[in-house]
Amino acid sequence: MKVAMLSSIAWKTPPEKYGPWERVVSLLTEGLVDRGIDVTLFAAAGSKTRAKLHAVAPAPYGEDKNLDPKVWECLRVAELFENSKYFDLIHNHFDFLPLTYSGLVDTPVLTTIHGFSSPKILPVYQKYNRRSFYVSISNADRAPGLDYLDTVYHGIDLENFTFRASPQEYLLFFGRIHHDKGAGEAIEIAARAGIKLLMAGIIQDEAYYRTQVAPYVDQDRVQYLGVAGPELRDKLLGNALALLHPINFNEPFGLSVIEAGACGTPVVAFNRGSMPEIIQNGVNGFLVADIDSAVNAVSKIRDISRRECREIVAKYFTRERMVENYLKIYRQIIAITKKADRRPWGHYEVLSERPDHKIKRIQVRPGGRLSLQRHRRRSEHWKKK
Amino acid sequence: MKVAMLSSIAWKTPPEKYGPWERVVSLLTEGLVDRGIDVTLFAAAGSKTRAKLHAVAPAPYGEDKNLDPKVWECLRVAELFENSKYFDLIHNHFDFLPLTYSGLVDTPVLTTIHGFSSPKILPVYQKYNRRSFYVSISNADRAPGLDYLDTVYHGIDLENFTFRASPQEYLLFFGRIHHDKGAGEAIEIAARAGIKLLMAGIIQDEAYYRTQVAPYVDQDRVQYLGVAGPELRDKLLGNALALLHPINFNEPFGLSVIEAGACGTPVVAFNRGSMPEIIQNGVNGFLVADIDSAVNAVSKIRDISRRECREIVAKYFTRERMVENYLKIYRQIIAITKKADRRPWGHYEVLSERPDHKIKRIQVRPGGRLSLQRHRRRSEHWKKK
Repeated sequence: MKVAMLSSIAWKTPPEKYGPWERVVSLLTEGLVDRGIDVTLFAAAGSKTRAKLHAVAPAPYGEDKNLDPKVWECLRVAELFENSKYFDLIHNHFDFLPLTYSGLVDTPVLTTIHGFSSPKILPVYQKYNRRSFYVSISNADRAPGLDYLDTVYHGIDLENFTFRASPQEYLLFFGRIHHDKGAGEAIEIAARAGIKLLMAGIIQDEAYYRTQVAPYVDQDRVQYLGVAGPELRDKLLGNALALLHPINFNEPFGLSVIEAGACGTPVVAFNRGSMPEIIQNGVNGFLVADIDSAVNAVSKIRDISRRECREIVAKYFTRERMVENYLKIYRQIIAITKKADRRPWGHYEVLSERPDHKIKRIQVRPGGRLSLQRHRRRSEHWKKK
Repeated sequence: MKVAMLSSIAWKTPPEKYGPWERVVSLLTEGLVDRGIDVTLFAAAGSKTRAKLHAVAPAPYGEDKNLDPKVWECLRVAELFENSKYFDLIHNHFDFLPLTYSGLVDTPVLTTIHGFSSPKILPVYQKYNRRSFYVSISNADRAPGLDYLDTVYHGIDLENFTFRASPQEYLLFFGRIHHDKGAGEAIEIAARAGIKLLMAGIIQDEAYYRTQVAPYVDQDRVQYLGVAGPELRDKLLGNALALLHPINFNEPFGLSVIEAGACGTPVVAFNRGSMPEIIQNGVNGFLVADIDSAVNAVSKIRDISRRECREIVAKYFTRERMVENYLKIYRQIIAITKKADRRPWGHYEVLSERPDHKIKRIQVRPGGRLSLQRHRRRSEHWKKK
């Protein structure tokens, strides 16, 4: 099976710092390579992969302001589709633009919809609904009126997360510093619980950081640590009493939630978006409605089995599980869309079809025998290979 | 000949106010319809045409802020290319995005490059150079390294511009109020020439208007009249002593310059961009280097024959001339790219080609006769229509 994997080119695949789409694409790609799948990864130059790398943009546009994102987006999508005949399937992780090329090629296109940036982009997904294949990253993120083949949860590489049975005495906020992620709410919850709060993540909204976060950061009871690389991330997540995840939007999936779980750390999350699909209330964390109930949940956090937190991730949210789920979907799509019909005796391909005639190339295996058919007019020309 | 014409969808085609690309597309489309060409115009809903209108966007995105331009641009380009087999040629007036779909269809694509908004967009034109066809709107606007089939100047409808032999005592600035167009320079030239200045055009740069224009507008010696519709435009252009066109950029073409000429009004222009291709110095205006020489040119403006100004436009810059030039190019492209080979006896089409065999569908006209050929192996199946 030959798969073209279309990543985002805002950052390298995998990303050096931030870049959740690129991170998931990398985990999936390397997992497919491990299973012997022939994958060509369309990603920014400098990306690291054991698949074949096909880079069109000379650098990620997030790193080089001389690159016009619109220009390099369409150039590289075109490059992929111009090579589509070499692939059995195109797996698109790059939002709506590639869909608009999908009607011009025969290769089936699967799109993982990593979230809707705005309802204004829905018309593209509506047009290609049922003409292309969609996968959602949680049931919560499905748009009404679109047909999805399946939901595939993101998976992580368990080896990168150390299980820690005995946490230290702090709570953790881990994510973009932005109203959506509830950084301010996390500060209030920790203060009322009377427990120290560590915070890590990119400052996505400067004004929000300045007014809602910075005034409380004393580097003692509230500490902001900047962006955490893989090693610090593993320690921060694993040693926390709990991850606070008081989101203010319907988050389509929570990577940091499963990363915490992999370390054995339970999560206290506002019950929105995909959270009830990741957290079993009282088992690997608590789903809460507001700050009051979050504070209450923190007081009961030691009732949660840290071993169970890790086991839930190991069962539902590993890279292996994600790869297997996608492989199953790839096989299903290829079976649905195959152009040439394979039969026990060989296969045939329709070269041309008109109202008054049809031209096929038929190949019969040695010893094979065609099923008997009758046509009013028929002309054959046989050639021995 | 069936032509798909791809306009911009920022505004309706033709535009109600501003919209130079949409204006040129409209003039060309209607001119082709007059010559019996089967044109399908891909433009925003609400566009007015005698061609077939294929609107995808529910409104021009310049008029409806609920429409995401990127979404509707790619949706409608896709719609055109998905229908490409119904056309002999696609004529793209919509910048670089459509080129990235052109490699996926057999229909040839001609792109009129209406100017380069930035050197950052050049990589797309470079990739599709020689794989697609380019026309420049002036020789001055050609990018080094790109191959152009031809230059086709924009044309106007002479009937919309009244020739006026005896002008009134004012100079005119007609264009976007922006540094590029030299609105400030026009004010200085008129002041130093001691002649009243009328100004019309959209305020594209508010800060520029506030600091460089508004302080001089006294509605007596310097009058700003807002945006001029077709009727006022005809009067303003026709009654002016001269059009001042002291541009600060290499303008790829100057529609207002030929519109002035059509009314008999000479133009004093800075000698940049396409100006020397439109203005013959001393014949239908003056090409000048700076404000000093512009003031000097204004003092000699009555030496210019207003009749000659109109005649130059009638000879080189009419809609008819533009339509004929494009038609010639369309025929040339279709001849170069035809897929099915047409012969005196009929035509043939290659359905499949492999190293060891080839499959053709051949159609012979009644009374026609194939040329004699010999093949080592050959199988035929004939069918009477």
